[in-house]
Amino acid sequence: MQSFELLSQKFTLHFDKTHLPATPASLYEPGEYFLKMGGKRIRPVLCLMGNELVDDIRPDAWHVATAIELFHNFTLIHDDIMDKAPLRRGFETLHAKYGENTAMLAGDVMLVTAYEHLNKIDSTYLHKILHLFNRTAKEVCEGQQTDMDFEKAQVVGFEDYLQMIGQKTSVLLAASLKMGTILGGAGERNQNLLFEFGKKLGLAFQVQDDYLDAFGDPGKFGKQVGGDILANKKTFLLIRAQESASAAGKKELQSLLKSDAPGKVEKVLQIFREAKVDAWALQLKNKFLNEALAHLEDIAVISKRKEPLKELAHFLVVREF
Amino acid sequence: MQSFELLSQKFTLHFDKTHLPATPASLYEPGEYFLKMGGKRIRPVLCLMGNELVDDIRPDAWHVATAIELFHNFTLIHDDIMDKAPLRRGFETLHAKYGENTAMLAGDVMLVTAYEHLNKIDSTYLHKILHLFNRTAKEVCEGQQTDMDFEKAQVVGFEDYLQMIGQKTSVLLAASLKMGTILGGAGERNQNLLFEFGKKLGLAFQVQDDYLDAFGDPGKFGKQVGGDILANKKTFLLIRAQESASAAGKKELQSLLKSDAPGKVEKVLQIFREAKVDAWALQLKNKFLNEALAHLEDIAVISKRKEPLKELAHFLVVREF
Repeated sequence: MQSFELLSQKFTLHFDKTHLPATPASLYEPGEYFLKMGGKRIRPVLCLMGNELVDDIRPDAWHVATAIELFHNFTLIHDDIMDKAPLRRGFETLHAKYGENTAMLAGDVMLVTAYEHLNKIDSTYLHKILHLFNRTAKEVCEGQQTDMDFEKAQVVGFEDYLQMIGQKTSVLLAASLKMGTILGGAGERNQNLLFEFGKKLGLAFQVQDDYLDAFGDPGKFGKQVGGDILANKKTFLLIRAQESASAAGKKELQSLLKSDAPGKVEKVLQIFREAKVDAWALQLKNKFLNEALAHLEDIAVISKRKEPLKELAHFLVVREF
Repeated sequence: MQSFELLSQKFTLHFDKTHLPATPASLYEPGEYFLKMGGKRIRPVLCLMGNELVDDIRPDAWHVATAIELFHNFTLIHDDIMDKAPLRRGFETLHAKYGENTAMLAGDVMLVTAYEHLNKIDSTYLHKILHLFNRTAKEVCEGQQTDMDFEKAQVVGFEDYLQMIGQKTSVLLAASLKMGTILGGAGERNQNLLFEFGKKLGLAFQVQDDYLDAFGDPGKFGKQVGGDILANKKTFLLIRAQESASAAGKKELQSLLKSDAPGKVEKVLQIFREAKVDAWALQLKNKFLNEALAHLEDIAVISKRKEPLKELAHFLVVREF
């Protein structure tokens, strides 16, 4: 069994090539530009780790991992258009550099390219992998639409937010792991346990993401602290504060959400602290992490094989960046 | 063997149902709205006809035909955003009614739904059908990008325009036929001949489309005559006129393309007529039609089986609407 770091290095080497045809360059050069931006490549590595949880990594797992990473990049390209985001990882977004029409098409063609890689795998698994891939892709789109719907809503309930994050973030992590175990030959019970591990891990990951945005160390966190607050984004913290702050806190929060006055971030953080949202978030994160680890524990393979996933889970959830 | 009309009625019945889940309605209701607009359903019926050219229609052909029609609608939804088109078939376009972000996502999810239908077919054919579907999808995207590139170019060469139309329009018609014959069990030679029939038929179809826009009978043609001229769209006619008009005609055309003066359509049509572009287009159309029919002729099945495709080819190319 290999650690996340080692598999991540191997996948990066495998993925670091030209993925798209040369012509028309007006369509494919933008796609290559986007892929070259890099990224943590968490999802494809989860696929490889899911495979290795039960057996040696099969060649097909590399095809599926590649398809997953291309799919993820397709969603980022289209999400950036929808969010009107100018930058990603410090680079111009695809639509900012090449225009929205080309960005839309470059995303479309990247999704088709993902399916080309899926089509390389053995017939034995093709139906099952395609089925899971399609279901996942639809859920990710559903999550993105619900997220956009939430932007227009004044208040979003905790359970609704949880479901949206489950679709937008967790399901692809979970499905990546599950596709790997399918290829590794795991039984259905183990496949489903690993899927649930991935779903809970995704939720813990998102809580940490939301926490860092508000309470992260500016020196370690790569992004501007308070970015979500400035953008009035629904987060675990905001939703909790809207439910649990004092009457005065709730009222102030309501009016802060409508204003762009200076000091907004500090004022919102003050309400978060008064409502003890920071401690609540750390508890919630640990709850999801423990639920994830319990599912992992339950999987019927020797515990040595689970070590890399356990390490990764802890790392993703305690990271400060 | 069944005529295009009969298969078209059968496919319409088959396709006239709810294709998408109920929730989130904010994502799926727009997609259903678009599918309900209808359309000629030419491509899926070509798939059924391709199957029936060689054998009785297999259940899998209905799945592939459905996937093809969903794919076609995905391209229309995204193309309408790119073209900023307010109307399609007299209805509001998806983005005009629901916003661009939802339209982009609704298109994405429709493409994924197309792959769900492909995944219903027998393993024996899945790799081959997916391969052709993916290659076709990429070419359609390439054609759309090239078409957008052409909009910015002052002059486009005939061969370049031909290649773009081949990708944007012909290849999906050709591939629909070919997928049908694959499922019907045709040999590779027959598959390829039918593909070439479809490619040439697509070119003839597009020449007729361009011709009707300029010289069609306003009473029969469903759209505004001269619409392409008003939009400065590159068409077979414009490209020919830019190459073959008199020096004075070329110069006037050049300046007309930059103006929105009243009488523009009539003036451009006058240049087209002087350069005999109308007669040339009819010749070109017949050339493509004859090339298409020669490929059909060459296919090694009894000629009775070819009748419905021969009739359809003539109908598509002489239609006045």
